[in-house]
Amino acid sequence: MRADVHRFVIATPGDVAALDRAICSGQVNPREIVAVIGKTHGNGLVNDYTRGYLTLALSSLLMKHTGETTEEITRRIPFIFSGGVEGVLTPHFTVITSTSDGAPNKSDQPSLAVGVGFSERLSPADIGREAQIEATADAVRRAMARAGIAKSADVHLVQVKCPAFALEAIRSAKPQPKVGPSQLMAYGRAAGALGVMRALNERPDVHINETQVLGDFGIFSNVASVSAGIEMSATEVVLFGMSQGWSGSLAIDHEPLKDALDINGFYALAKRLGLSPQPQVARHDAARIRAAFVKCEADRSGRIRGKPHTMLNDGDIDQQRHIRGAVGAIAASILNDTALFVSGGAEQQGPDGGGLVAVIVDRTGAAAGA
Amino acid sequence: MRADVHRFVIATPGDVAALDRAICSGQVNPREIVAVIGKTHGNGLVNDYTRGYLTLALSSLLMKHTGETTEEITRRIPFIFSGGVEGVLTPHFTVITSTSDGAPNKSDQPSLAVGVGFSERLSPADIGREAQIEATADAVRRAMARAGIAKSADVHLVQVKCPAFALEAIRSAKPQPKVGPSQLMAYGRAAGALGVMRALNERPDVHINETQVLGDFGIFSNVASVSAGIEMSATEVVLFGMSQGWSGSLAIDHEPLKDALDINGFYALAKRLGLSPQPQVARHDAARIRAAFVKCEADRSGRIRGKPHTMLNDGDIDQQRHIRGAVGAIAASILNDTALFVSGGAEQQGPDGGGLVAVIVDRTGAAAGA
Amino acid sequence: MRADVHRFVIATPGDVAALDRAICSGQVNPREIVAVIGKTHGNGLVNDYTRGYLTLALSSLLMKHTGETTEEITRRIPFIFSGGVEGVLTPHFTVITSTSDGAPNKSDQPSLAVGVGFSERLSPADIGREAQIEATADAVRRAMARAGIAKSADVHLVQVKCPAFALEAIRSAKPQPKVGPSQLMAYGRAAGALGVMRALNERPDVHINETQVLGDFGIFSNVASVSAGIEMSATEVVLFGMSQGWSGSLAIDHEPLKDALDINGFYALAKRLGLSPQPQVARHDAARIRAAFVKCEADRSGRIRGKPHTMLNDGDIDQQRHIRGAVGAIAASILNDTALFVSGGAEQQGPDGGGLVAVIVDRTGAAAGA
Amino acid sequence: MRADVHRFVIATPGDVAALDRAICSGQVNPREIVAVIGKTHGNGLVNDYTRGYLTLALSSLLMKHTGETTEEITRRIPFIFSGGVEGVLTPHFTVITSTSDGAPNKSDQPSLAVGVGFSERLSPADIGREAQIEATADAVRRAMARAGIAKSADVHLVQVKCPAFALEAIRSAKPQPKVGPSQLMAYGRAAGALGVMRALNERPDVHINETQVLGDFGIFSNVASVSAGIEMSATEVVLFGMSQGWSGSLAIDHEPLKDALDINGFYALAKRLGLSPQPQVARHDAARIRAAFVKCEADRSGRIRGKPHTMLNDGDIDQQRHIRGAVGAIAASILNDTALFVSGGAEQQGPDGGGLVAVIVDRTGAAAGA
Repeated sequence: MRADVHRFVIATPGDVAALDRAICSGQVNPREIVAVIGKTHGNGLVNDYTRGYLTLALSSLLMKHTGETTEEITRRIPFIFSGGVEGVLTPHFTVITSTSDGAPNKSDQPSLAVGVGFSERLSPADIGREAQIEATADAVRRAMARAGIAKSADVHLVQVKCPAFALEAIRSAKPQPKVGPSQLMAYGRAAGALGVMRALNERPDVHINETQVLGDFGIFSNVASVSAGIEMSATEVVLFGMSQGWSGSLAIDHEPLKDALDINGFYALAKRLGLSPQPQVARHDAARIRAAFVKCEADRSGRIRGKPHTMLNDGDIDQQRHIRGAVGAIAASILNDTALFVSGGAEQQGPDGGGLVAVIVDRTGAAAGA
Repeated sequence: MRADVHRFVIATPGDVAALDRAICSGQVNPREIVAVIGKTHGNGLVNDYTRGYLTLALSSLLMKHTGETTEEITRRIPFIFSGGVEGVLTPHFTVITSTSDGAPNKSDQPSLAVGVGFSERLSPADIGREAQIEATADAVRRAMARAGIAKSADVHLVQVKCPAFALEAIRSAKPQPKVGPSQLMAYGRAAGALGVMRALNERPDVHINETQVLGDFGIFSNVASVSAGIEMSATEVVLFGMSQGWSGSLAIDHEPLKDALDINGFYALAKRLGLSPQPQVARHDAARIRAAFVKCEADRSGRIRGKPHTMLNDGDIDQQRHIRGAVGAIAASILNDTALFVSGGAEQQGPDGGGLVAVIVDRTGAAAGA
Repeated sequence: MRADVHRFVIATPGDVAALDRAICSGQVNPREIVAVIGKTHGNGLVNDYTRGYLTLALSSLLMKHTGETTEEITRRIPFIFSGGVEGVLTPHFTVITSTSDGAPNKSDQPSLAVGVGFSERLSPADIGREAQIEATADAVRRAMARAGIAKSADVHLVQVKCPAFALEAIRSAKPQPKVGPSQLMAYGRAAGALGVMRALNERPDVHINETQVLGDFGIFSNVASVSAGIEMSATEVVLFGMSQGWSGSLAIDHEPLKDALDINGFYALAKRLGLSPQPQVARHDAARIRAAFVKCEADRSGRIRGKPHTMLNDGDIDQQRHIRGAVGAIAASILNDTALFVSGGAEQQGPDGGGLVAVIVDRTGAAAGA
Repeated sequence: MRADVHRFVIATPGDVAALDRAICSGQVNPREIVAVIGKTHGNGLVNDYTRGYLTLALSSLLMKHTGETTEEITRRIPFIFSGGVEGVLTPHFTVITSTSDGAPNKSDQPSLAVGVGFSERLSPADIGREAQIEATADAVRRAMARAGIAKSADVHLVQVKCPAFALEAIRSAKPQPKVGPSQLMAYGRAAGALGVMRALNERPDVHINETQVLGDFGIFSNVASVSAGIEMSATEVVLFGMSQGWSGSLAIDHEPLKDALDINGFYALAKRLGLSPQPQVARHDAARIRAAFVKCEADRSGRIRGKPHTMLNDGDIDQQRHIRGAVGAIAASILNDTALFVSGGAEQQGPDGGGLVAVIVDRTGAAAGA
């Protein structure tokens, strides 16, 4: 198998013209698409409809090309979109394809591997609870199996999208969640992360359970990146790792982010991936970046390295918009690339107050010593 | 003479308790205060009243301590506040003092020098026009003279605050400006920058005039940092440079920023100032940073390094709030400090789409080789 | 001919399930749909993608039912969506159908008549200029002819949607407009209104021309309601009036709004339409309201009835969002209905600082004396 | 005793020039000021510093005129400011004075009576709990006694301002509240309302206690209007009613608001106060309005009269800003006055999903039959 990653900058959340051209020209085979992950123009909060817009535009496009129904497409391909391209960030989506190259991978060098998984439908009452944790864990296990990855240590990113619900859906749920739409999204992200931890056995010393959801921030995944959106009714998982069962020049690696100023984390990862940052990755090396994924959050203590920030007192701009703009700029300035997947709401995804970063690069053309 | 710089983090825009304590303990002599520059909690736009709030709180405090009237204080001390601490930034103000140390400076090494200047009252009709350019230039010349700096090359930062006007003041002005409150602020910032250029003769090849205001972005200052606010009716200038007429361990240097991703600019300046970034300045070196000033702007082409940004299409978050959050985070991640003066609206202050940075450090304790 | 009006409340901008059911049940014949007008969840500004989302969802639905292509549908049916349901307002869309009832209208009583028109593609350089005025006037003339309305006095509402452009499209236009995306939308709305005035000869004493666009607010239409959106490349027009060539129980009437507090205007119109407000329309009469259209704006003097408002100084909430929420609530409180089309940006649509309102009611069941 | 009410429109939250003139001219005796209530320019949320700014500006002004210290002034005069003048509303403050007219009130007609009360300091841990309920009740009892009002039925408005806390204060409180700054404000408002109910015995059938705080929305006050602000550390109360112990032409009355569309409530109150609405109060009658106070809230069911609203799903504009703009416009359109005190967050202040309104008028000049 060989995974490939194609990134498309978009002018609007309905802009699928570039992918249409790539399909028409044969560059992308729509039958080989296994997942689409992207950042859209919206606020990334409850009333962000740009995620649903792009989902509709993409499924309409793929229907046209493959003859599948909407249902067939959405059952096959996770569409994981996160709103919010604050500051320097660029709206885009990344198409991940998987090609069967007929022969088993001969190389002794592992390559980028990818697998997807879906849960059953979840209700508002499941969010943040055992039901969601286990449904997520189950989908992660399936995704890992499909990726042909046996060891958790070879998993570098588990991108999860879980359902969110607007006020009316919450009000009519039985039993009714005790929190509003925005806070329920936080529960969903945290429980999604714990589901990843359970599947990967990230903390063998701990029994992962629902009391830890937003309850113990010392328990966190190092590879889970979870978004929530009202356009979803089930959980979708895209798992990335390295495997000798896959071939090709792409590779992925990841790094935890200690806090919102952890530029050294980005720098270390860029170095390890052979991107030669000084501190910025030069243009020719930046061209080898195929995708980058960042989770981040506004430190809930109200302070970063001892000095106060204002993100959690702000009634004009949501904390997630603040932190995406800030950490996204740090990531972009090191990686020399603005089309990054930067997502706020890193509850239990990376260290408390920090987050994580994963980058996929094309190893072709890297300097020897890198 | 000896300049000193004291930074105070604030919990609210009315929080002058720490300065009160510093005055009571003798750490700051209120008679020696020559300027206060700060970042407050507001949006940094027309309806940002946090600048006026801090001005009132500070002048009330100083009245109490010196017995001066409000008028005497505001005629003597520029209060230059800029709203907007998006992302990781910390609200704070910086008190600059100037002490006569009785003896001429013996050192052959120049030290931080500071001088202030005030213009006459400006009307809405003056903003963006020759009247404002010359009024600013005149105030800059006076500030430079007071700082005892003879050569423009020794000037590293000219912090300017010019008047802005809410809708009603604009409507009743004669002649009435053709633009609304927000756009008039942009004219004011640009004309202020041209005033600095005229005074410092930054571009001897060009006759600085009002047709260039927001008209020719190839003409820009490398040391002007201009803010506008409705709490001002005249222009106030604080000029920083290096001079052998001043003593002490403080030094200032500056660097242009080519664009919003120019992390290498921050890095180069930090290196030159002996802060040993790798790429982040370590904690003990960050403790030697006394103040940092950054101007930045959303690239008006709609693109950064070839990829689109969304800042100029956004109806929810003003472009200035986006860019301050982004570039502020890059600055903070290199300098390892969040209490930075980061200001948007860099029209003709630094390269088009970029801006500038100036940092004041205490040279005491720097590693020898730095 | 007989016009009918079906209103559908939507949960998201992609929610076309209720219309799908209405089509499946035979309540709405998709071939008879002549226009769809709606209010979506977005901010109503440049970066509002909810309008495009609903357009895509509706055209996909209609394709499924009629077998037409997207192009055929969008050439036949104006989709006029305006973002922004601030305050009490309800996201919804209104489907207007036209049925040929085989026989000429026998009644001597006129009924609701409707006609649509489209312009050619417009470029950013056309917006606010003669080209747009005449293109709009031309489309209005065609819509009026299709509606079978001969006299301008019988026209009660001309709903226009004109193109808008994001920053990049403006930057690459030749000649390049001198203003940014948001201000270009205002030019487009004003020129659209002047196009309506020209077609209807609303001001026979005045030669309508481009110098009046945002230039003379004393020149305004009493029936034009114009929105702009980046999802459009041409101007689309839906014209409503009363005609004896149409049958059925629906009727429309309109009223100018003198300013943002003109509750008496809403009240007078409700009375004239037989809705018996006291001052609120009672529930059974409110049930006869089929659609209501309101244009409104923040008084550009900065004052309403002598007292200041803050809408035009606000950097956090756009003035259009403020005024829609305010005037929308007044309209809703009189009409006892929140699913209203309330649109900001009333430049030259109704009196300066005011706007206009038009309401379609079902006359069936009105009390005799009303 | 005679109460008087002076309203001052303000250009900024620091604008006390008109009151300064009124004091200098003898129109207002600063020693007779018993309370100041106002609406300022901010967002009305946690990070609204315009309330503190006006408090500082007013106390500085009064110090100048009376020679009192800040402490003496703030111990004597409640400064109750609420941020948020969305839509048509006008920033202003209302100065309430109480004059001893030397002689007992001879009239058999009751007049406007006013009294104030203060609680002890409250900590974050007290908010929403019994401690706050009883502290508020106690302050209300004192205010009622000072107003010389014996019967609860004669009380028409109890304006309460209770403390709020930013994130850091909450984090360091012991025991630490379980909710964030914004939600703690809601607890504070609800508990304040229950304190008023307890003092006035509004629900003799119910034992008021902390389990009802945000727990039972069927239990609500009809006269409590509670705001919260981080500029407060204790609860301040201004109680208004009618009493034969007071003289003068001013009167107050109030009305519950059933929901956000209850224009009939405003209309009924205006009629009862002799303002002859039709439906708008005519200019000469509007001139007799001295102050109006409105509480309102976004219906927490997500619906108003069966149709959905979007206020509680919105991540761009806070629900309080939406509802103030909407209900404020309805109030202004009936009363023909925009300088109204309209406050969101009506938890347990008026019917669930609704709120309340109280208006002070000058009876002089009212038409006889009114």
